[in-house]
Amino acid sequence: MTIAPPVDRNLIEQIVREIVLSQVGGPPGKPNLVVSVSARHVHLTDQDVETLFGAGHKLTVSKDLYQDGYFAAEETVMVVGPRRRMLPTVRILGPTRPESQVELAFTDGISLGIELPTRASGNIAGSPGCVLVGPKGVVELRQGVIRAERHIHMGPADAEFYGVKDKDRMGLRVASSCDTTFNNLLVRVGKKIKLEVHLDTDEGNACDIDHASSVQLVKN
Amino acid sequence: MTIAPPVDRNLIEQIVREIVLSQVGGPPGKPNLVVSVSARHVHLTDQDVETLFGAGHKLTVSKDLYQDGYFAAEETVMVVGPRRRMLPTVRILGPTRPESQVELAFTDGISLGIELPTRASGNIAGSPGCVLVGPKGVVELRQGVIRAERHIHMGPADAEFYGVKDKDRMGLRVASSCDTTFNNLLVRVGKKIKLEVHLDTDEGNACDIDHASSVQLVKN
Repeated sequence: MTIAPPVDRNLIEQIVREIVLSQVGGPPGKPNLVVSVSARHVHLTDQDVETLFGAGHKLTVSKDLYQDGYFAAEETVMVVGPRRRMLPTVRILGPTRPESQVELAFTDGISLGIELPTRASGNIAGSPGCVLVGPKGVVELRQGVIRAERHIHMGPADAEFYGVKDKDRMGLRVASSCDTTFNNLLVRVGKKIKLEVHLDTDEGNACDIDHASSVQLVKN
Repeated sequence: MTIAPPVDRNLIEQIVREIVLSQVGGPPGKPNLVVSVSARHVHLTDQDVETLFGAGHKLTVSKDLYQDGYFAAEETVMVVGPRRRMLPTVRILGPTRPESQVELAFTDGISLGIELPTRASGNIAGSPGCVLVGPKGVVELRQGVIRAERHIHMGPADAEFYGVKDKDRMGLRVASSCDTTFNNLLVRVGKKIKLEVHLDTDEGNACDIDHASSVQLVKN
């Protein structure tokens, strides 16, 4: 096993890289598009939080995420895969959920030795498991380790603007020196939801989102 | 610093993942398209091979690559970045070159703490440096650490088929559950060159190339 390196402040701050870029050629009133790149992270149940961090423990907010009510927690866990490989400090995102879930990029999965299915968040039936190690205990997840399928959150007004409905598919064009179009992103429409694309680090790095000159949603 | 994990045979065999998939809707005679995903690797000068592995040392072929004359070597080096972070076993690709060069994915660069410029192979002026450590010596590269710009190798007949010439740009559509179009790939035409797209691991993982149902070159 590798020894945990000291926690790097830059990396913590990059748990979620939010990129806000003007979209080219938009009419007035075009919704503001945020593209967020989520590094590997864990969602936990209340019960698993207590098992890992001690009875009665509640997650501590470290940084609010773009969608209201969601946050990166101060807490991290060790994710242990098969073959005794592990990721020492994987951030927990809150709030807690009905089922625990680990979201990794394929690069992480290859490093851990886990073949990741690409799934919409919450759709974890039959996915691989792993072991989570916290300061006060251990949780063995029978399933829940996935690569999150990239997707677009939007509110009803955004959906109307783009002429799409819940569960439709749209593309995301990222203009950069590594110019890329991600096709067939799942559209998820909800009340009080802000327009936001979620990519993982492989996707964000593939298109060099940090140096992109524009991002644009395109009809399928 | 992390301790080097035992070398994993699966990883060695994935130094270059070559994906050969039929292209949809092609006319008879359409060239066979190979998409190769190159993991991080190093190109060395003869002099640097001797410094790292001992006087008179020559690289040993481990696996021939798709293009004739190119190979993954048995030899690996440690790549050390700033802040005492390192990658313990980075594969060397042969043959040797006039200038040493380290090709990393952005994921590797973030892990090492190196801000990588995206460059065509060989265009290393002003790029970051690093330290290479081999069993017999150390080389300090003043420059040469890049993210290789994705590109398409092809022969004259392929160029004629697609109606492109050297230095043109084309797209690569990868149909998969993470369906992606990489835009503006640099076309490099050369005699005796086989049609092959080179992606890095971030790009290969972003589009889940290992489970793609088809790959297709598209006009820009």
